[in-house]
Amino acid sequence: MPTIDEMYPIPCAFCRISKAYPNETTTNVPLSPDPERVDPQCHLILSTPLVLAFLDIMPISPGHILLTTRKHYRTLGDLYPASNQTWSSRREAEEARDASRALGEWLPIVSRALCKVTGIEDWNVVQNNGERAAQVVPHIHFHLIPRYQEGREETQRNGRTDWGTLKSWKMFGRGSREDLDDDEGKELAKKLRDAIREEVESSVPTSKL
Amino acid sequence: MPTIDEMYPIPCAFCRISKAYPNETTTNVPLSPDPERVDPQCHLILSTPLVLAFLDIMPISPGHILLTTRKHYRTLGDLYPASNQTWSSRREAEEARDASRALGEWLPIVSRALCKVTGIEDWNVVQNNGERAAQVVPHIHFHLIPRYQEGREETQRNGRTDWGTLKSWKMFGRGSREDLDDDEGKELAKKLRDAIREEVESSVPTSKL
Repeated sequence: MPTIDEMYPIPCAFCRISKAYPNETTTNVPLSPDPERVDPQCHLILSTPLVLAFLDIMPISPGHILLTTRKHYRTLGDLYPASNQTWSSRREAEEARDASRALGEWLPIVSRALCKVTGIEDWNVVQNNGERAAQVVPHIHFHLIPRYQEGREETQRNGRTDWGTLKSWKMFGRGSREDLDDDEGKELAKKLRDAIREEVESSVPTSKL
Repeated sequence: MPTIDEMYPIPCAFCRISKAYPNETTTNVPLSPDPERVDPQCHLILSTPLVLAFLDIMPISPGHILLTTRKHYRTLGDLYPASNQTWSSRREAEEARDASRALGEWLPIVSRALCKVTGIEDWNVVQNNGERAAQVVPHIHFHLIPRYQEGREETQRNGRTDWGTLKSWKMFGRGSREDLDDDEGKELAKKLRDAIREEVESSVPTSKL
């Protein structure tokens, strides 16, 4: 007899990641998550009860991060729905509101870690809702996209990207996107986790999101 | 003798708006704010203790909204700074964390109001940090940009935009931007306030942000 998972496979790529990487640490920063728990590999940097962050597998620029909700919501409009009088819908509404707050709370923290690790001072945050808005995975996610200093040449050191000296990136949505190299992703994700952990440990201690 | 305001004029456009429109209602939705409290006019739709939302005066597409913090922060990285041991910096950190949560909490609510009023189902949320990321006003703000259905012709009724039947909009950042018509802005802002008020009144009642 098939299992429930076999009968109802999870079709959403981000739900698969959410399921593969449950919240396991009090700091919300996973210690050394195995990228191969999902295919393609996931380079996880944050795993809280409500949100996750990981590297985009087709980065617009090096360091491109996605911040997403743990639970499946298609668009921002599906978060925080108006409650009616039943307990379950009220609970769902509160859960959605908490998820929306968590997205807001983690965006600055992940942003600072991104700046620290890549050396950038400029970045875009983009969140697309619906096909006509270029949403690809139908599960809410914020893109954090570094914009490197113009005029610099892309350089490599020992075959790896030198984050500090990248060539200017092109207009958002028009830059070239290449598959993330898994070794490079693994190294970058570790640096980002370390930086987020530092942020969390030095911050006001009331965050439960 | 000059006043403090004359000696230290507020140079930030969004700080001027924040100062001109204090939080005055328990629902956080202003009743009938005078657009002429600032120049250029501000078509305000939300005014909470921590955040404000109003129409972009140069919309990329009709209904283009900005959601911003009440307090001046330049980028997302300036929100939720790590606290040290002094009381004032700890308080500032908590205030910044609350502002970041409020941004997260209001994004879905304002989004749903935008969808309801304009009839769109697709929209982009964009937040730019730093000059190289196309940030113009140096005060954190999220753009909410409707993407109208492709293939439809822009139409006008009685000289006003018909929100439901707009022509396709171009790639983000490449569409034409024209000054918002103040009469049209006033009408649209009223509809958005009504829609946000409905959202707030039917939602889970614990929001204090």
